[in-house]
Amino acid sequence: MVNWFKEIENGEIEYGYAFQNKLFEDQSKFQDIKVIDTLAYGKMLILDDFVMLTESDEFVYHELIAHIPVCFHKNPEKVVVIGGGDGGTVRELVKHDCVKEVVLCEIDGMVVDVCKKFFPAVAGRLDHPKVDVKVGDGMDYVRGLENEVDLMIIDSTDPVGPGEGLFTGEFYQSVSKALKPDGMMAAQSESPWAEAEFLNRIHNNIRTGFDYVRPYIASVPTYPRGLWSWTLGSHSPIDVDQFDYERFAKVEPELNYLSDAMVRACFELPKFYRKKLSVLNQ
Amino acid sequence: MVNWFKEIENGEIEYGYAFQNKLFEDQSKFQDIKVIDTLAYGKMLILDDFVMLTESDEFVYHELIAHIPVCFHKNPEKVVVIGGGDGGTVRELVKHDCVKEVVLCEIDGMVVDVCKKFFPAVAGRLDHPKVDVKVGDGMDYVRGLENEVDLMIIDSTDPVGPGEGLFTGEFYQSVSKALKPDGMMAAQSESPWAEAEFLNRIHNNIRTGFDYVRPYIASVPTYPRGLWSWTLGSHSPIDVDQFDYERFAKVEPELNYLSDAMVRACFELPKFYRKKLSVLNQ
Repeated sequence: MVNWFKEIENGEIEYGYAFQNKLFEDQSKFQDIKVIDTLAYGKMLILDDFVMLTESDEFVYHELIAHIPVCFHKNPEKVVVIGGGDGGTVRELVKHDCVKEVVLCEIDGMVVDVCKKFFPAVAGRLDHPKVDVKVGDGMDYVRGLENEVDLMIIDSTDPVGPGEGLFTGEFYQSVSKALKPDGMMAAQSESPWAEAEFLNRIHNNIRTGFDYVRPYIASVPTYPRGLWSWTLGSHSPIDVDQFDYERFAKVEPELNYLSDAMVRACFELPKFYRKKLSVLNQ
Repeated sequence: MVNWFKEIENGEIEYGYAFQNKLFEDQSKFQDIKVIDTLAYGKMLILDDFVMLTESDEFVYHELIAHIPVCFHKNPEKVVVIGGGDGGTVRELVKHDCVKEVVLCEIDGMVVDVCKKFFPAVAGRLDHPKVDVKVGDGMDYVRGLENEVDLMIIDSTDPVGPGEGLFTGEFYQSVSKALKPDGMMAAQSESPWAEAEFLNRIHNNIRTGFDYVRPYIASVPTYPRGLWSWTLGSHSPIDVDQFDYERFAKVEPELNYLSDAMVRACFELPKFYRKKLSVLNQ
């Protein structure tokens, strides 16, 4: 007997996944949390009926949100991840010797517990000695930081529900203040195929905290429309040639999406996306 | 009142699209043909319950299958398109002055008629003086050609139903024979996220007709898993530097996906895809 989980986007598009068993469902203080074993993608984590990750394709999202900023920053010793309670971003970050300390601040402790239990290959490095997991409000946590973080990674859900505040201009300004002067930020920034107004709201908010922003893209089949974006923020220009290919070479053999050539390719943006984003046309 | 059309992949994944009206449905000699007006993507052409194209994103597929091979070939005067009855590939081909003659061979005349009626922005150049539309079996047509075509474009449906024969080794061998010695071929070659066995069957069949094959990729949100591939076939090595950027520059202002940088990027393949394809690992 096969069941179907269906994610609905805007009442217009439905993404359905056949699964055998619901392995977990509970309501945390913040959201509904489900784990199902899909036929197509293996185990899937679902928050408030939106797909967060699957065993088969999570590597793309986590490689892109972690290794790109780590290899752009000059020396990212202290890294803070906001959200990302599944642990996939942390797993990628601790592969780098230059990263000495990772703080993860996730609002929903149940996400962390569920991922440790059902997704050990994703969450397994949350216990790494370099990692400090804090359960709490990322916005509050970031507000308390000043000039002390090298790299901040905003690994949030969509801008509805508990993730909403992580897309505001106020939040990006506090991220900017938390960073050292040569600090950098990377945030997930939704699908390039989404409405221009929605994408511009996100990017214009990032721009209130950062003079330089640079989006990059990759294919994530279980995210709406199959193409995803992340955006770097910095106080100095972000030139693709700054990327530290030597640092990257040490982790590259373990990766499944990114190669040297794919790093360059993910910064090349389709024309329809470049035209949409006002931050790229100023 | 909103209705839903649902495309099902392997009984495992469902892609649903809300629509207002079914504008057309009929059974041709070969397949079921539907046209609906979706909320998310505008009008959509559906063959045997698989999405063929939508008004909103067809530009990606057609830019990639047409301009890439045209700009790789030294002088593509005579181009043959097999399949492609919607006319989108032809629309892109006739933009090039160097292309003097385009023959389209589509097995299903009803597809051509339906697209002329419901998708004039796609099919509108099928009446162009450089274009000759033949309704008939592409395999038979190609078998009758020898050493006379510069560029052959295989713009087929999936390898089930009427498109099945267009993925066999025998077919690619007859494509090879139809081409002049310096001829080239481009074929749609399914999603990089599909099963390795399926992708290898396609590429190994192409290899029986061509010594050199080179896949390239782009994001198509209404195709399964959101990432698509096409493959060039040639009798001589295919070097990205051969691409004729001057020829491309004349059409580039009209395009919505490809820029010079995106041409280079679409030949960079994610590691998971490179590892799957045995033709890339020989």
